[in-house]
Amino acid sequence: MTEVSLNQITKKFGKQTVLNDISLQLKPDTIYGLLGRNGAGKSTLLNILTNRIPASSGSVLIDGQTNINNDRVLGKIYLMSEANLYPNRAKVFQIFRQTAHFYSGFDFELAHQLASKFGLNENLRFSKLSTGYRSILKDIIALSVDAELILLDEPTLGLDANHRELFYRELVETYAQRPRTFVISTHLIEEIAGMIENVLLIRDGKLLLDDTAENLLAQSYSVTGPEKEVQEYTAGLNVIGHDNLGKLRSDYVFGQLDEERVLPDTVTVEGIDLQKLFINLTGQTDKEGQL
Amino acid sequence: MTEVSLNQITKKFGKQTVLNDISLQLKPDTIYGLLGRNGAGKSTLLNILTNRIPASSGSVLIDGQTNINNDRVLGKIYLMSEANLYPNRAKVFQIFRQTAHFYSGFDFELAHQLASKFGLNENLRFSKLSTGYRSILKDIIALSVDAELILLDEPTLGLDANHRELFYRELVETYAQRPRTFVISTHLIEEIAGMIENVLLIRDGKLLLDDTAENLLAQSYSVTGPEKEVQEYTAGLNVIGHDNLGKLRSDYVFGQLDEERVLPDTVTVEGIDLQKLFINLTGQTDKEGQL
Repeated sequence: MTEVSLNQITKKFGKQTVLNDISLQLKPDTIYGLLGRNGAGKSTLLNILTNRIPASSGSVLIDGQTNINNDRVLGKIYLMSEANLYPNRAKVFQIFRQTAHFYSGFDFELAHQLASKFGLNENLRFSKLSTGYRSILKDIIALSVDAELILLDEPTLGLDANHRELFYRELVETYAQRPRTFVISTHLIEEIAGMIENVLLIRDGKLLLDDTAENLLAQSYSVTGPEKEVQEYTAGLNVIGHDNLGKLRSDYVFGQLDEERVLPDTVTVEGIDLQKLFINLTGQTDKEGQL
Repeated sequence: MTEVSLNQITKKFGKQTVLNDISLQLKPDTIYGLLGRNGAGKSTLLNILTNRIPASSGSVLIDGQTNINNDRVLGKIYLMSEANLYPNRAKVFQIFRQTAHFYSGFDFELAHQLASKFGLNENLRFSKLSTGYRSILKDIIALSVDAELILLDEPTLGLDANHRELFYRELVETYAQRPRTFVISTHLIEEIAGMIENVLLIRDGKLLLDDTAENLLAQSYSVTGPEKEVQEYTAGLNVIGHDNLGKLRSDYVFGQLDEERVLPDTVTVEGIDLQKLFINLTGQTDKEGQL
């Protein structure tokens, strides 16, 4: 079990502050969803965790030790990202071997099995792989290394529906067999919603939410009905967004409802899913609410 | 209104047959979903439609005329694809202007509006755009050109949930204002399911389905219950796949049910969605059925 803590991480590129004072602890053996808009700072955060880029200030501690110039610590982490780090001429099986030089417990048997299930030909050169199959190769490596902390940055980019389903199934399977911590950054929120135990939501470089998916969904509502009644009912509540359809209106509420309020017959209250919550918390237009 | 027909299109790369005798007519002013696994031949088909690559045999006719070396015909088609055709140093507004040289009715007003809605800075150089914003730029151009046939190859690659929602909304809006034909190739089937009128499904280089979404869904079922009862009920029907959960089983059926069969109390029949249908029609493992 590996303990991971980020302490007041700030990252600036020139005058732009990409990450702003982020502190968090990752619980061991937990599947995290790392959510945020394009440009919110998710990839930067993952790159800092693995020391691919330096933070402007703050520290990352893995089991109490810095991750800077520390191969023993970095061997506990694997980052799957969009970056293509492999030589174009290297063949798939050679990339597996090369990975095993750094991650000595690399599970070749699992990697071969997965390559076969995904239809990845191990004799192909990296340069010949499509966008989807490059993601698949990197996903296979991520599931096969013996690291304790697996960071997945858009693991399903370019994957078709069958391959995405297969990938989620294999991830859960390997997690059950050998629990470790996964951090999954993706734009396909609903597809991973059933799998993630904890949500990290970054907005404008700040950590906006760090809570269990269960807690978040238990306080996320849509309130739908005639515009006037809906607005009377949600007045003073934390309305994070709304939709209109003709004269009907849905207000999205994040936080507790007022139990003393009487719900008119014409108005219905329902839970919303994680993607709807995300869209309303991070949308920039027509949004009146806040956390 | 533009008429598009593909006549016995076959494409070979070396010994590999990527497209195998594909014939179809595109109805005018219709939104098509072009579905298929990675490697099924979707992108090849779109590239042949726009004469970016030649077919090995067969012809493409646009309003009765060949698309080969025919700028007048190619001006009626726009292909948005993963290929990055712009100079790295070109700025966004320059790329708009360059596009207007070929598509003289390019709608600059719409392009500016969309750039603003998507948060795309028109002064950025192409090389500075992320994967998501490259897709957004190409999507904006696709919606702004005055072509009659708009081909979109993975238009939401790298887009976050809000941007995907915005894109679908803007596509439907511009389609309502100026009807034309869209062909959307995507792996996010459920997100476009509500928008597409007609489905084209390619499997192993062959056109497997060409039908309205309505017709397809009207004959797609899941049959769920205890394994034995389910298998008795679906015996002889066109079972295209199944899932198991403990002792429960779901068989997926494509085609008419047998109305004379008695449905046991323990078994339920429900419709399935387009993504589920797709996964079961195109999956390669554990599938016993066929079209």
